[in-house]
Amino acid sequence: MTVIYDRVALIGLGLIASSMALAMQRGGLAGTITGYARSAETRATAREIGLCEVFDSAAEAVADADLVVLCVPVGAMGDVMAQIAPALKPGATVSDVGSVKRAVIDAVALHVPEGVHFVPAHPLAGTEQSGPRAGFASLFDNRWCIVVPTEGTDRAAVDRLSDLWRGMGANLDEMDADHHDLVLAVTSHTPHLIAYTMVGVADDLRRVTDSEVIKYSAAGFRDFTRIAASDPTMWRDVFLTNKDATLEILGRFTEELFALQRAIRTGDGDHLHAYFTRTRAIRRGIIDAGQDTDAPNFGRGPVQR
Amino acid sequence: MTVIYDRVALIGLGLIASSMALAMQRGGLAGTITGYARSAETRATAREIGLCEVFDSAAEAVADADLVVLCVPVGAMGDVMAQIAPALKPGATVSDVGSVKRAVIDAVALHVPEGVHFVPAHPLAGTEQSGPRAGFASLFDNRWCIVVPTEGTDRAAVDRLSDLWRGMGANLDEMDADHHDLVLAVTSHTPHLIAYTMVGVADDLRRVTDSEVIKYSAAGFRDFTRIAASDPTMWRDVFLTNKDATLEILGRFTEELFALQRAIRTGDGDHLHAYFTRTRAIRRGIIDAGQDTDAPNFGRGPVQR
Repeated sequence: MTVIYDRVALIGLGLIASSMALAMQRGGLAGTITGYARSAETRATAREIGLCEVFDSAAEAVADADLVVLCVPVGAMGDVMAQIAPALKPGATVSDVGSVKRAVIDAVALHVPEGVHFVPAHPLAGTEQSGPRAGFASLFDNRWCIVVPTEGTDRAAVDRLSDLWRGMGANLDEMDADHHDLVLAVTSHTPHLIAYTMVGVADDLRRVTDSEVIKYSAAGFRDFTRIAASDPTMWRDVFLTNKDATLEILGRFTEELFALQRAIRTGDGDHLHAYFTRTRAIRRGIIDAGQDTDAPNFGRGPVQR
Repeated sequence: MTVIYDRVALIGLGLIASSMALAMQRGGLAGTITGYARSAETRATAREIGLCEVFDSAAEAVADADLVVLCVPVGAMGDVMAQIAPALKPGATVSDVGSVKRAVIDAVALHVPEGVHFVPAHPLAGTEQSGPRAGFASLFDNRWCIVVPTEGTDRAAVDRLSDLWRGMGANLDEMDADHHDLVLAVTSHTPHLIAYTMVGVADDLRRVTDSEVIKYSAAGFRDFTRIAASDPTMWRDVFLTNKDATLEILGRFTEELFALQRAIRTGDGDHLHAYFTRTRAIRRGIIDAGQDTDAPNFGRGPVQR
């Protein structure tokens, strides 16, 4: 229980910010936690559940804060930063939790005042749920947080932020922004787009009804609906700001999909079997690395009605 | 606890057959359960765990059986049926659990002897694991089993088989073969192909390593690896035998994917936001229908190492 920052301000009070507040409280990592959200409803909810000290303006929330964490959709980061910049304490650190790093750095860095440290970061954790009520203290346990230092980032500021994330349960890595964005295009952005697409297709068919799709979803489809239930604004911004890497991986995806489609059309069972065999190893690696459960069906039992 | 069939033979002793054996035992639904698997190793495992009375030939296993259930990959159903046909008891029912119905009916029906009832069926349940040790008694609880009666199928035989599936915990539906194959192309076959493709792409990149993919998989990718770890032989056969419906749905999928890709390229955030909003409703429907858990991240907690 070591306080790492006396005063931490969270701007945006959704799933990630509320989980951070609870994880910091669990670990006794922050003296005071303040917060601000643009929506009055979100602020009221955060107050109701006693998440942190909630202010009605971002400037008030960040005043005197040693660490300010931007927890808004990546498309909003630049504007928020411009708004809080005049209110920041000299020597403070500003960080963020955006899923895209190059675009956030480009949008935020130019607003960072002299004497304030900017340390971009991205905790790779989340659920399909949104809002301040969705947070929980263990969200970051054994998940990775990638810190993306920019040119001239103060090393001590990076180390202190890393200590905070470790205190919240995360494993730490550092990466440059472009590599981060490519890695995330593979492990997160493209999978989300594909899941959204598949769910949209199923919803839009005339010859198969929505009620059939729902009833028979346990045959595989339901797994796609979880990530396709994620926050639309957050994901819109991710795709608009990580355009190049997402389009590159999508290109590879459609290339492989067409090869498999041709194998189906031509009846090339050997190609299919070889491809389907190769993909088992990665699952094993993920389980061995503690990044997923070994329990069949993710451990979901039958749901009783 | 009402015995529905005195003697049930399971041909093929993988995940589905072993779960059926355990579910029938749980419900006291069968007097005697016999079994056969082509692989000596599988037979030895089934004997070791006391799954059922295991025979070294399919003919012996089906002798005197009132119900024979073919639990082999769909590409093997015809050959297995040809092989057991001479050994079937007059008045017996033959069923199957194949994920494709038209091709199975075409391959199996011509071998069914006069006086034997053929009732094709498909329980929509499974996990990513395979083999006789993977089975568990509750696999079919609150899942759907689709019965696909063929022309001239005996109604009493259909009803009796339906009672067995209800006894094993399933909900029953009836459908014609072509509609079944289209519905499954949407809810199961295409999602599996897409998951296999995505995992294969991630495995094959040069600029992102497998170890990065594994470490950072919790950001979405890991969900795809579960169904991409399913049995390669079973899935090869599914795609080869449900070619038309799978290719049709894949065509719709790529059409939508290209539209979203274009929206990303042109920066059309409204299109993306509208699409991502629409897909949330189906998730809600699935949860309300008891076909998936409401718990965030499927209820998976952090995995401790």
